[in-house]
Amino acid sequence: MIELIKGGSVTSAKGFIAGGTYAGLKRSGEDVLDLGLLYSEVLANVAATFTTNMVKSPSVVLSQRRVAKGKARAVVANSGCANACVGEQGLKDAEEFTALAAKHVGIQPEEVLICSTGLIGVELPMALIRHNIGNIHLSEHGGHKFARAIMTTDSHPKEMAISVDLSGRKVTLGGAAKGVGMIHPNMATMLCFIATDAPVGLEFLRKATKEAIETSFNQIDVDGDTSTNDTCIVMANGKAGGQPVEANPADAKAFQEALTYICISLAKELARDGEGAQRLLEVVVDGAKTVADARKAAREVCGSNLVKSMVHGRDPNWGRIMMALGKSGIDFDESKVDIFINDIHIVHDGVSIPYMKEAVISAMSVPDVQFRLSLHAGEASGTAWGCDLTEEYVTFNSAYAT
Amino acid sequence: MIELIKGGSVTSAKGFIAGGTYAGLKRSGEDVLDLGLLYSEVLANVAATFTTNMVKSPSVVLSQRRVAKGKARAVVANSGCANACVGEQGLKDAEEFTALAAKHVGIQPEEVLICSTGLIGVELPMALIRHNIGNIHLSEHGGHKFARAIMTTDSHPKEMAISVDLSGRKVTLGGAAKGVGMIHPNMATMLCFIATDAPVGLEFLRKATKEAIETSFNQIDVDGDTSTNDTCIVMANGKAGGQPVEANPADAKAFQEALTYICISLAKELARDGEGAQRLLEVVVDGAKTVADARKAAREVCGSNLVKSMVHGRDPNWGRIMMALGKSGIDFDESKVDIFINDIHIVHDGVSIPYMKEAVISAMSVPDVQFRLSLHAGEASGTAWGCDLTEEYVTFNSAYAT
Repeated sequence: MIELIKGGSVTSAKGFIAGGTYAGLKRSGEDVLDLGLLYSEVLANVAATFTTNMVKSPSVVLSQRRVAKGKARAVVANSGCANACVGEQGLKDAEEFTALAAKHVGIQPEEVLICSTGLIGVELPMALIRHNIGNIHLSEHGGHKFARAIMTTDSHPKEMAISVDLSGRKVTLGGAAKGVGMIHPNMATMLCFIATDAPVGLEFLRKATKEAIETSFNQIDVDGDTSTNDTCIVMANGKAGGQPVEANPADAKAFQEALTYICISLAKELARDGEGAQRLLEVVVDGAKTVADARKAAREVCGSNLVKSMVHGRDPNWGRIMMALGKSGIDFDESKVDIFINDIHIVHDGVSIPYMKEAVISAMSVPDVQFRLSLHAGEASGTAWGCDLTEEYVTFNSAYAT
Repeated sequence: MIELIKGGSVTSAKGFIAGGTYAGLKRSGEDVLDLGLLYSEVLANVAATFTTNMVKSPSVVLSQRRVAKGKARAVVANSGCANACVGEQGLKDAEEFTALAAKHVGIQPEEVLICSTGLIGVELPMALIRHNIGNIHLSEHGGHKFARAIMTTDSHPKEMAISVDLSGRKVTLGGAAKGVGMIHPNMATMLCFIATDAPVGLEFLRKATKEAIETSFNQIDVDGDTSTNDTCIVMANGKAGGQPVEANPADAKAFQEALTYICISLAKELARDGEGAQRLLEVVVDGAKTVADARKAAREVCGSNLVKSMVHGRDPNWGRIMMALGKSGIDFDESKVDIFINDIHIVHDGVSIPYMKEAVISAMSVPDVQFRLSLHAGEASGTAWGCDLTEEYVTFNSAYAT
């Protein structure tokens, strides 16, 4: 039983505190923060995934190296500068940055992970960071500040917390994420931090994190581009007490479900807040031969510029859905495909049903649009999330000189 | 020595005639044509490539089957209707369509290929085609009408012809193509027809066609979407006389160069006329380990929405170029990459050169923008072409209900 914690944040779980401050990396403004620190009172098990881009920020490189050990106490994060494509200085700066954070809270630099998001190609302004990192005040309520400190062009912070009953105890998972939107000259980056007080063995934590991310953050698309800095970190500090969740199969299952739930919830918020987006698109593919097929097809439909444009225009132009399904390359029979738009059946056995166009347009005139594609090729299903492609996306992303 | 033929068309080569008419498949208007027929006086060797989309128009299926035999006399083409996602009726209609064309010119249906482009999910209006196909008047000057008959939202017909001297004789290659632009409810489709009087053996023609298309039409991107109907057909009828071009290595090379040249020229015109496009983007990747790497990286940079947006905004935001290069997954060392925008050197060894931003913006304020990426990882190079992403693209493609 997963319960939403009202006003929850990444510090809702026991033993996590956080904070944020303004150091001058972003343009100043009301409530603008650009340095954040998340801290666990005790050494936590940690699992994470990072960008697949060949060009990686040194912040990613350093975190990858430290996550490999499976333990961490803190994460320091900045927005405004991606610390990417800056040569050898990038790794030096990332190391110094974590050392400054470690000193501030009295732990070892190796226990600190780092995430950066913002402009590519410029160095971290270390003087500003040295000067301001000491201003971060950590508290149990600091999760909200942390969530704001990692924002770039996000229209609002994304954070939430849930609790779940395991056998004989309640554990909490809190999360903060930033999304995929950009105004020049920022590079979109997806960052997510999950902090739980559940006791979780490292091996199980890695497996559970991989599974949760595969069905959530790996299934969203805003513009088909992959940042140099994407990072998702899950920390489990065990402060809720008791035996490791994986010791009891029912607990393991409940924890996995809770972790997947919070990841999907935050991922959908990222898609919904995509650059210029006005609508959330959910694509469910069922009846596929394999889960990998279903997920791939769902991603492909979500990622098509033509599909995104039709969602923007509330246009039931299902030929584009078939086109995107076909270019996914998965195995299916065109003559068995059924398509539903917000539950209205518009294609049966691969050909059009004489649906009422105005009714479908009306059904698409809502903030959440769902396409369901039933392939009748097998039993597997998968879901992906995206957003519409709007004139604002183009305007925002070409706004430098025009 | 390749020479451009002024006013050339797909019927510039000896022994090819063509024509077009209006049958009512598209909205009527001045000079609107929607049925075209290209005809060779003698049986020609034919090679072709077709869409890789799993969902294929029955027009593609029928042409694929017939091209496999290596011989054809004619191609019938229509715009306005893709003949795709219409169930079993699609193949019946395609077969009848070619039979009607064959009867009109007095040849066998099996000698006729077919291409369709337009709306997905509606059946070909066969009554209109039966009634009007007899109005197509074939002539040596009919290539211009054929080029117009295959247009959907193309702003102008794309056609050209070149001649090339082989040992002791001149051969001609004419071409017509349609591009990748769409207004609701059309699906973009890329069609291209090359007709040459060069005598070319079937095996060499297939090889030469594959090579030409790999460096041209397979290297353009407008919106990352793949039509159900893409087709490129090369017909060689031998009317220029003499021995097959492949009998003499110098002739084979000259013919290959000419075929590649006309394909690249038409491909660039398609990219330049992409939906809503205002600028042609050429991405040259050199110093790659393999040609496949270079081509893939060039395509990936051309295909990135963020890169397309920066071209639209004349924004020298090179971090996006590095991001797209990185997500291509090819093997290179970030610290050795040099980037040039219209010959201005802006990145050296993976980090920014302090270039004058205003000068780069000025250099990008032209109809043709070139990015050159030197990887210093090997000797191979590749080029791709695309266009900018504009507000008009989104408006056009979401214009149904808003």
